[in-house]
Amino acid sequence: MFDIIVIGGGPGGYLAAERAGARGMSVLLIEQSRLGGVCLNEGCIPTKTLIHAAKSYHHAQHSAHIGVTADGVKFDLPTAMKWKKKTVDTLVRGVGYQMKRHHVTVVEGTGTLTDRNTVRVGDETYQGKNIIIATGSSAAVLPVPGAKPGEHPAKGPRVMTSREILDLQELPEKLVVVGGGVIGMEFASLFDALGVKVEVIEMLDRIVPVMDQEIGKLLSKSLSNIDIHVGARVQAITKEGVAYQDAAEEKRIAPAEVVLLAVGRRPNTSGIGLEAAGVDADRTGIRVNEQMRTNVPGIYAVGDVNGKSLLAHSAYRMAEVAVNSIAGEADRMRYKAVPWVVYTMPEVSGCGLTEEAARESGREIRVAKLPMRANGRFIAENPAGSPGLCKVIADAKSDVLLGVHMLGAVNSEMIYGVAAMIESELRVREVREIIFPHPSVSEIIRDTVWEL
Amino acid sequence: MFDIIVIGGGPGGYLAAERAGARGMSVLLIEQSRLGGVCLNEGCIPTKTLIHAAKSYHHAQHSAHIGVTADGVKFDLPTAMKWKKKTVDTLVRGVGYQMKRHHVTVVEGTGTLTDRNTVRVGDETYQGKNIIIATGSSAAVLPVPGAKPGEHPAKGPRVMTSREILDLQELPEKLVVVGGGVIGMEFASLFDALGVKVEVIEMLDRIVPVMDQEIGKLLSKSLSNIDIHVGARVQAITKEGVAYQDAAEEKRIAPAEVVLLAVGRRPNTSGIGLEAAGVDADRTGIRVNEQMRTNVPGIYAVGDVNGKSLLAHSAYRMAEVAVNSIAGEADRMRYKAVPWVVYTMPEVSGCGLTEEAARESGREIRVAKLPMRANGRFIAENPAGSPGLCKVIADAKSDVLLGVHMLGAVNSEMIYGVAAMIESELRVREVREIIFPHPSVSEIIRDTVWEL
Repeated sequence: MFDIIVIGGGPGGYLAAERAGARGMSVLLIEQSRLGGVCLNEGCIPTKTLIHAAKSYHHAQHSAHIGVTADGVKFDLPTAMKWKKKTVDTLVRGVGYQMKRHHVTVVEGTGTLTDRNTVRVGDETYQGKNIIIATGSSAAVLPVPGAKPGEHPAKGPRVMTSREILDLQELPEKLVVVGGGVIGMEFASLFDALGVKVEVIEMLDRIVPVMDQEIGKLLSKSLSNIDIHVGARVQAITKEGVAYQDAAEEKRIAPAEVVLLAVGRRPNTSGIGLEAAGVDADRTGIRVNEQMRTNVPGIYAVGDVNGKSLLAHSAYRMAEVAVNSIAGEADRMRYKAVPWVVYTMPEVSGCGLTEEAARESGREIRVAKLPMRANGRFIAENPAGSPGLCKVIADAKSDVLLGVHMLGAVNSEMIYGVAAMIESELRVREVREIIFPHPSVSEIIRDTVWEL
Repeated sequence: MFDIIVIGGGPGGYLAAERAGARGMSVLLIEQSRLGGVCLNEGCIPTKTLIHAAKSYHHAQHSAHIGVTADGVKFDLPTAMKWKKKTVDTLVRGVGYQMKRHHVTVVEGTGTLTDRNTVRVGDETYQGKNIIIATGSSAAVLPVPGAKPGEHPAKGPRVMTSREILDLQELPEKLVVVGGGVIGMEFASLFDALGVKVEVIEMLDRIVPVMDQEIGKLLSKSLSNIDIHVGARVQAITKEGVAYQDAAEEKRIAPAEVVLLAVGRRPNTSGIGLEAAGVDADRTGIRVNEQMRTNVPGIYAVGDVNGKSLLAHSAYRMAEVAVNSIAGEADRMRYKAVPWVVYTMPEVSGCGLTEEAARESGREIRVAKLPMRANGRFIAENPAGSPGLCKVIADAKSDVLLGVHMLGAVNSEMIYGVAAMIESELRVREVREIIFPHPSVSEIIRDTVWEL
């Protein structure tokens, strides 16, 4: 009888195992493929590795204005893919090391609940006082003809999800991305930077709809090389390319060598014995409360599978909340200070409420924004005309900071500080008294807060 | 009669003028040279512009492992210098714009106090209810033969301070930096990255003594291309180079084409009429209290000239404290959450107590550290073997976060979040509950905090 059985070795699962192991609990972790899950093996990490390479390629070509020139700048995709593999392998080993360090038993296979304390893996069964389900999510299917990942009609486009496209060994001339959400836009921006002609087809009226609208518009504008079609419905993928109806209801074809399907992700709730254990789930995922408890005592669900926040770092925190709850410590998952990043070029990040969400909440708000070009280091490090914006939203009555949204520079490394401020419910007055290092792009946050 | 007269248009001075103007006060700003002061015109900003160019040069040469190759990568110093000038000019105009926006009267000239309410500039005199002295600091002099900036003995080295070296139009083959503090090490690293052979001569037994010792050692090791001599006393600058006595008291010569003097900075307290107004000062600067008040009612001193914290961002905050104090708002300058960055390659930053300072304070502490290679994005974005460390210090009894110190990646953009946490006196438990975006190097802070 283990103290905890964790089903799934992605961020939610492995961190739950690590934290529980560190507390001295006996833990079994079940993973059907490689430790690290989608995030590490075919998501966050491999994409960021390639995006880094693409940025280097871009800078090597475009630094003449600062005195750096080169002839014949070349990009070799197979070498970048090797670097990606090396990075992923290193990190998978790192997760394995953490499991050993915290005395977690790792079993390879597919875990299936047979009752509230039992998980079957192949012919073996394991007993756990508590069970944490962390089976993640999978790429959603696009229900139109020809849209099957792995398809490659003769002379037609190759159809892929984010998984397959991460194993490309040759750049296509033309990529069509179906879906203008976070994943779709990151790949669009990556391939654009590598010189591939990219079109994006998005059903909604704007890309990355979770984003503050103004920032989203600026992102669209910044990715000027990419043809973005919003309000467009894909009808089929044919030999000619992606057939869609545009916002004016005209039928169009986007010719493609490769089609990337990035139409969202669905929680992996089937085939894991939820019914046998009596765990409630619907199409949005397993139902959990703020402690990550399901309706069945002793069974928890963390990460994408509960559908609450499909982000690796949300999964981390959920894992900690679940383990704390099992250990009898008061804790609860809060979503108001979950930062997010879109690793396009330029990067976009945010934390807290968007301007629209803040207004819709009925609060009286104050909003301020500054172009990144108001910032010294940004001007020093970016060519004239580089886009950039920082927007801050605060509650006009309580003076509490509600949200910060940024486009431009390395804001992916800056946004955690905003999460700290929002989680701590800092007032505008308090944020103004924080000392930011000069010169840094991070100062734009302070300066924008002073504009409120 | 102005509400406030500000003497000096550097970061402390111009921000004081801006904040006071924004409050509707009538403000006169006196600057003898260009708005922005040393920081903008011959310090922080120009150096960071060149460091950015040097990084681009480095990456263009060293990205083959990620698939990016180029032939004949070249660096052209005059082009980089033009970019630097353009950057500085843009920002100086930006400061001018802020002065106009906030209805600040700007006068060019040297301001001299004649009594506690009067400042003379040339033939004019101005009256102020309050006066803020923000005259900054100057490069300290090295009292040895030949060490006069501007010297260029026939066939001998050219002797410069940070001011003159920022106008070089040709790279020397060999640079000797006298002084291994922040300024000295930034220039050493910059010129090293540009292919110049660099030696550093430091009197103390280690470089950048304000730094956590372990991080300082790692920095020395990381700059392996630079010959760093600690415990070494410069005795003269001669035709042959820099004559010094090494730590073993052996006499040596460091041959040099250019010698950079970076032996600290001294507050600019002379020639500004401190005696006439009766303002107390000693060699460390004008004496001020936590409200930036001098001994004379109505006279304040902010920035380098008070010697409390020679950092532009400290000056900013001091300016705000002074203006708030003048406006009758309770405020006080706090130094415990002042972040700092050394823009070497790799970057180093810190905020709060070093491990040594925390121990010396008599506290019971907990210390944790992680190599940056424990971080996914760091591994994805840095070649194998790249140095990196994050160190966290906490109070064992109160659980309060005391300090965070980092080497590697873009920690200059991350450290402000630590300042926010330390300023807010967050407990370790609270920091652990903050959600950091994945994947980001910033996660190393959270992971290190979990190691406490």
